[in-house]
Amino acid sequence: MAATAAYSRSGGATRETAGATAVEGSRPACCSLYHHAIELVGKRWTGAILLVLMDGPLHFSGIRQLVPELSDRLLSERLKELEAEGIVERRVLEGSPVRVEYSLTAKGRALEPSLRALKEWARQHVSDR
Amino acid sequence: MAATAAYSRSGGATRETAGATAVEGSRPACCSLYHHAIELVGKRWTGAILLVLMDGPLHFSGIRQLVPELSDRLLSERLKELEAEGIVERRVLEGSPVRVEYSLTAKGRALEPSLRALKEWARQHVSDR
Repeated sequence: MAATAAYSRSGGATRETAGATAVEGSRPACCSLYHHAIELVGKRWTGAILLVLMDGPLHFSGIRQLVPELSDRLLSERLKELEAEGIVERRVLEGSPVRVEYSLTAKGRALEPSLRALKEWARQHVSDR
Repeated sequence: MAATAAYSRSGGATRETAGATAVEGSRPACCSLYHHAIELVGKRWTGAILLVLMDGPLHFSGIRQLVPELSDRLLSERLKELEAEGIVERRVLEGSPVRVEYSLTAKGRALEPSLRALKEWARQHVSDR
């Protein structure tokens, strides 16, 4: 993420103190790794795709059924991004016709505590609109 | 979120089974509450603002210092959105000059487990670029 290039890459330990007040100067600045992560999972439709893959591998059409308003084009784009991040794995299943299956990698499955906690937060705090 | 209007609002219990395969038909569809939540916290800069407010109230300038690449205009926009969602509270402090302080509401603080878990995931799985 070019926009966060000036950030600390150390996971939050670096502080931004120049010109800060006493209180603010003693607090850790937002770290770029987290910043990248939250905007990755929060990108349009990505969070929904990750959630349905948490329960196991799916074909393209299966994801489309479980996230019904997502278009083929956007799903395809998001899956490629998640593959490039090492979060989703694409596997070609032999047979006729050949089918393609998508699953979470270990890195992807490690998102589960965070996403489940957010789902619970949503259940408790986001009202029906 | 108009785009998710056709979703289940029940927190994930509703299933999307029409035309599904046996496996996919038995799995819960992505729920709209979670979908709204993850795209809310993952919106550009919002996750970073929430993280620095987790440690306590800050003035506008304090948030700017801890999230150094964020512009005044975008910070102001994001704070208004978070106020409208009931996640951030704006308090005017008497004095000369009058100062404004921003803090998380109980609803905002309840995001902590999810955001901390994501920060930890980022520390373990997102490499320095």
